[in-house]
Amino acid sequence: MKRPTIADIARRAGVSKVAVSYALNGQRGVSKETRAHIQAIADEIGWRPNSAARMLNGARSRTIGLALCRPARVLGVEPFFMELVSGIESALAAQSYGLLLQVVADHQQEMAVYNRWWGEGRVDGAFLVDLHVDDPRVKELEAMRMPVVVIGHPDSAGSLANVWSNDDSAVYETVRYLARLGHRAIARVSGPTLFHHTGIRDLAFDLACQRLGLPPLRTIRTDYTGEAGAQATRDLLDGVEPSARPTAIVYDNDIMAIAGLSVAQELRIEIPSQLSIVAWDDSPLTRVVHPPLTALTRDIAKYGAHAATRLLALIGGERGVSYEDQSPRLTPRGSTAPPAK
Amino acid sequence: MKRPTIADIARRAGVSKVAVSYALNGQRGVSKETRAHIQAIADEIGWRPNSAARMLNGARSRTIGLALCRPARVLGVEPFFMELVSGIESALAAQSYGLLLQVVADHQQEMAVYNRWWGEGRVDGAFLVDLHVDDPRVKELEAMRMPVVVIGHPDSAGSLANVWSNDDSAVYETVRYLARLGHRAIARVSGPTLFHHTGIRDLAFDLACQRLGLPPLRTIRTDYTGEAGAQATRDLLDGVEPSARPTAIVYDNDIMAIAGLSVAQELRIEIPSQLSIVAWDDSPLTRVVHPPLTALTRDIAKYGAHAATRLLALIGGERGVSYEDQSPRLTPRGSTAPPAK
Repeated sequence: MKRPTIADIARRAGVSKVAVSYALNGQRGVSKETRAHIQAIADEIGWRPNSAARMLNGARSRTIGLALCRPARVLGVEPFFMELVSGIESALAAQSYGLLLQVVADHQQEMAVYNRWWGEGRVDGAFLVDLHVDDPRVKELEAMRMPVVVIGHPDSAGSLANVWSNDDSAVYETVRYLARLGHRAIARVSGPTLFHHTGIRDLAFDLACQRLGLPPLRTIRTDYTGEAGAQATRDLLDGVEPSARPTAIVYDNDIMAIAGLSVAQELRIEIPSQLSIVAWDDSPLTRVVHPPLTALTRDIAKYGAHAATRLLALIGGERGVSYEDQSPRLTPRGSTAPPAK
Repeated sequence: MKRPTIADIARRAGVSKVAVSYALNGQRGVSKETRAHIQAIADEIGWRPNSAARMLNGARSRTIGLALCRPARVLGVEPFFMELVSGIESALAAQSYGLLLQVVADHQQEMAVYNRWWGEGRVDGAFLVDLHVDDPRVKELEAMRMPVVVIGHPDSAGSLANVWSNDDSAVYETVRYLARLGHRAIARVSGPTLFHHTGIRDLAFDLACQRLGLPPLRTIRTDYTGEAGAQATRDLLDGVEPSARPTAIVYDNDIMAIAGLSVAQELRIEIPSQLSIVAWDDSPLTRVVHPPLTALTRDIAKYGAHAATRLLALIGGERGVSYEDQSPRLTPRGSTAPPAK
């Protein structure tokens, strides 16, 4: 198996390789008819100018890199990531850019991949996601001088361009909504503290409770998996006196909220009359369960598309900026109600 | 922003570009000390031989292509695809191959992308997924002479190499399991008939029912979305006399099964005492709902890894073969039981 070459065209056309090269590069010395004939053969057999040759002449690779430091098993489950990728894709495809994807085991391997891709000219730029507190990758990417867009909070992005959404207003809207329904004993099942955005949400929940005169939330940390969300829900509800239980639980992703709903149903705790549930992130999953989940809704695909558009602008020579995308909005559904008296 | 060049190294080392080139290419005329000094500077500033230059010398792109003809919105929801990609990734990463991904609107665009990638030397090979009945893409890819592995049944793959799993035994195991529990009124919520594998499963269900002396299944077609799965379940159960309802429903994916479970709970139909539910494909989602779903389990990540391994072998010059992966196996859980008397 091999791709069509100039030699194949020359053989079919019965001319020399030099003549084919002249014809396809628009150089003189080839008649109009011969040029058209050669071009027709090239089209027929699917010949294209080699991307390597074009890149040596300074053309871009028209490829964006995304090295993902997530266990393969987690990738398949959380809808967030695939929605983000599909949004990135939609913006890249419009400009005939491809997305080069590689799953890596840790941050060190991730930086090695970016270093290699950038150094070898395989990508024109890259995304950085899932930022940690004091993330060393930011400094390494700054030093690499590759066009990079951070998908995350500006405080975490150093001097790199970033696209982010403001969680503060979403947190306040959620806590105020639950407070107005009459909830005072609210719990939160959160992601791990090593992520920068977990700390942002922690602070926002604390401030919202203070402003609304609520006692501080009880927070249980998880690794974002459904299993951990189920276990956290058991810790909050199973064998606990009804008066000591939270009357509402906010989950940091939709998978954990669905797992929590199932645990409550198993424990014969009625949703929403005995317990209200709110999911952060609103994939179609939240609408296929019963009752459908009240959720923090945002257009994750559009978020990805905006990040891609900013990165293409950066590659095109524009200055990197901090771009604030829409904040998530609360979508009330059947899983929330006033607490039982 | 620009990547490090030989000129940058020459400036730092205080030598000519020719000397740097000689040193890094291992040519004579450079002292051992100078060579070490230049290599140290190259490492420090992250210089790499340009991939375009290497490719012009006949090196491979070390990239595999996957053009995906799925609406962006669907990608984020069905765990199957991301698990497949994560498995493909794991096998490619082990050989320092990247995966070039592009979402396309239709099959025509998909073939145009493959034609361009292959013609330009951007990829060394590609996958073909989601095969239709009499899929014209097979002939087009045969003509392109690019190394391709079809992820699908050998009957659909033409002369292309393929990796597949045998659904026949999984269907028989499922129907026999339900029949032994005492079910006779079984329904199936299936994917669309345009997919080749839907027809394979249709036939297998018919044959299994015949062999086991069961009446034919009632089959409802969907587009695989949770919404369609919920609607199909309503059609089977809502406002239907209990004696006219199916006592068991088999769903062609896990998302539809979870949606069906929720509809049944909404209609106050007890699972599993009044209705048994089986999910085809067993993501972690099936274990976070209550009751956990009986499911057809297969290691989708391993399936993807096998497909990638076959494709790398093909690129390495081995002959394309038809590789049969493990069949899905039934994992009984809490969603199935004998039907109510």
